[in-house]
Amino acid sequence: MCPAKVDHPSNRGYIIPIGGGEKKVKTSSILNRFVELSGGRKARIVIIPTASRLEDTGDRYQEIFTEIGIDTVDIVSLDNREDCEDTGKLAKLENATGIFMTGGDQLRLSTIIGGTSVAKLMRKANAEGVHIAGTSAGAAFIPEHMIAFGRGGATPKSGLATLAPGLGLTNKVIIDQHFRERGRLGRLLSALAYNPFAVGLGVDEDTAAFIGPDNVIEVLGSGGLTVIDPTDLQHSSMADVGRGKPVCLIGIRLHILLEGGRYDLSTREAKPASG
Amino acid sequence: MCPAKVDHPSNRGYIIPIGGGEKKVKTSSILNRFVELSGGRKARIVIIPTASRLEDTGDRYQEIFTEIGIDTVDIVSLDNREDCEDTGKLAKLENATGIFMTGGDQLRLSTIIGGTSVAKLMRKANAEGVHIAGTSAGAAFIPEHMIAFGRGGATPKSGLATLAPGLGLTNKVIIDQHFRERGRLGRLLSALAYNPFAVGLGVDEDTAAFIGPDNVIEVLGSGGLTVIDPTDLQHSSMADVGRGKPVCLIGIRLHILLEGGRYDLSTREAKPASG
Repeated sequence: MCPAKVDHPSNRGYIIPIGGGEKKVKTSSILNRFVELSGGRKARIVIIPTASRLEDTGDRYQEIFTEIGIDTVDIVSLDNREDCEDTGKLAKLENATGIFMTGGDQLRLSTIIGGTSVAKLMRKANAEGVHIAGTSAGAAFIPEHMIAFGRGGATPKSGLATLAPGLGLTNKVIIDQHFRERGRLGRLLSALAYNPFAVGLGVDEDTAAFIGPDNVIEVLGSGGLTVIDPTDLQHSSMADVGRGKPVCLIGIRLHILLEGGRYDLSTREAKPASG
Repeated sequence: MCPAKVDHPSNRGYIIPIGGGEKKVKTSSILNRFVELSGGRKARIVIIPTASRLEDTGDRYQEIFTEIGIDTVDIVSLDNREDCEDTGKLAKLENATGIFMTGGDQLRLSTIIGGTSVAKLMRKANAEGVHIAGTSAGAAFIPEHMIAFGRGGATPKSGLATLAPGLGLTNKVIIDQHFRERGRLGRLLSALAYNPFAVGLGVDEDTAAFIGPDNVIEVLGSGGLTVIDPTDLQHSSMADVGRGKPVCLIGIRLHILLEGGRYDLSTREAKPASG
């Protein structure tokens, strides 16, 4: 029963939530860094387009990764739970050095992949060093606690964010995406106000948080990473307010980091790019 | 980053969700079994009445545990987040062989205790052998994924259950309480439909699920334990339906266990009392 255990060092692969809307070109710094981590030219990338309902989403990323110059780029289509037990598909995933989940709807990822052999394989692979990236819905699905849906707005309200179990690569963060573009501070604060043990990561479009095996995050991309740290929270009124009513939060720590900025999830210290 | 790790044997203490409404008398089989596990006459029990807004909730349990015949029964009042850093209170918890959380509102537990030194201590203590029981709201708060609130009804609907992070002693189960009495099958199914990786436990009143260090559950009490196992789930339409609309689920496995019945969370096998 793992969640009650304490931290220990690991050879875990990188966990890379991307805020959506990343530049889909071969010069994208985010996609290039992901390829580089996964072995450069020798990387074996698997794309999971499950979140998307569009047929060509996987193809588009396959083209870009191929243009970047790697030989082995596979699309593994997982359209139902039976697909997630298919030995051929599992073998392709088993062979990957990097796994990339596209955008779409995170509830498609959690309802189709959750609890299947693919989910187990991805968790184990990441624990053993495989890098896992997800953009937009693919980013939301990454942590143990996933924002399933919610509404926009700057201030937290009871019920504004609906949480659901995610893939569970880490429970240290709750991730929201298209963050600045869709005004999601209120919904991320609402998600944290239920139980302020995790750190909130609000990832802007064309921006990624590279969470290393040492639990240090580095920001890459043209937008910002909003870090919401509830360590010093003195009060959350979530238990006292009616549904849809504003929530009082006292003592939230907030950081906005840009490219090159770092945040240590263990010490909860932020450093700007120059630091 | 613990949640991605795989299972391993442990000396973990028992995790004991109680469905609420247990007989508050010294002959209660549930409270006696909890005392016996915690060391019998030599047990050191700490009561956490945080979920309740009534002043005498802790006192009532203190009387019963004292009548059962143990010497050391402390109430540790945690009324705000500052209390959860109090060295005197932490020392009492540190000394416990069994911790008991009363009923009330689980959002009081998660907003006051979540992310504090008390939460860390309880997780570590349980991992090291201390038994942790909770009744009603105290039961809901136990797992990694907690049902914060929801509505009654037998069939699952989108948005029927609102999840939030709980204490995180285990992520293998999602717990609902007052189960039969308040008709909560629909809300527990809704909670599982988001991501069918966990097992749902619906605990009736005056009934407890004793989850052992070996991940085998034994049922005790006058009601039933409803086990919802989504292992064979072929389809969840949670991603496709509008808010408040019914959800299609195909392939759920359901068990109703009574006193003496067992369920193995590792193999997902149920056995009746006589088995």
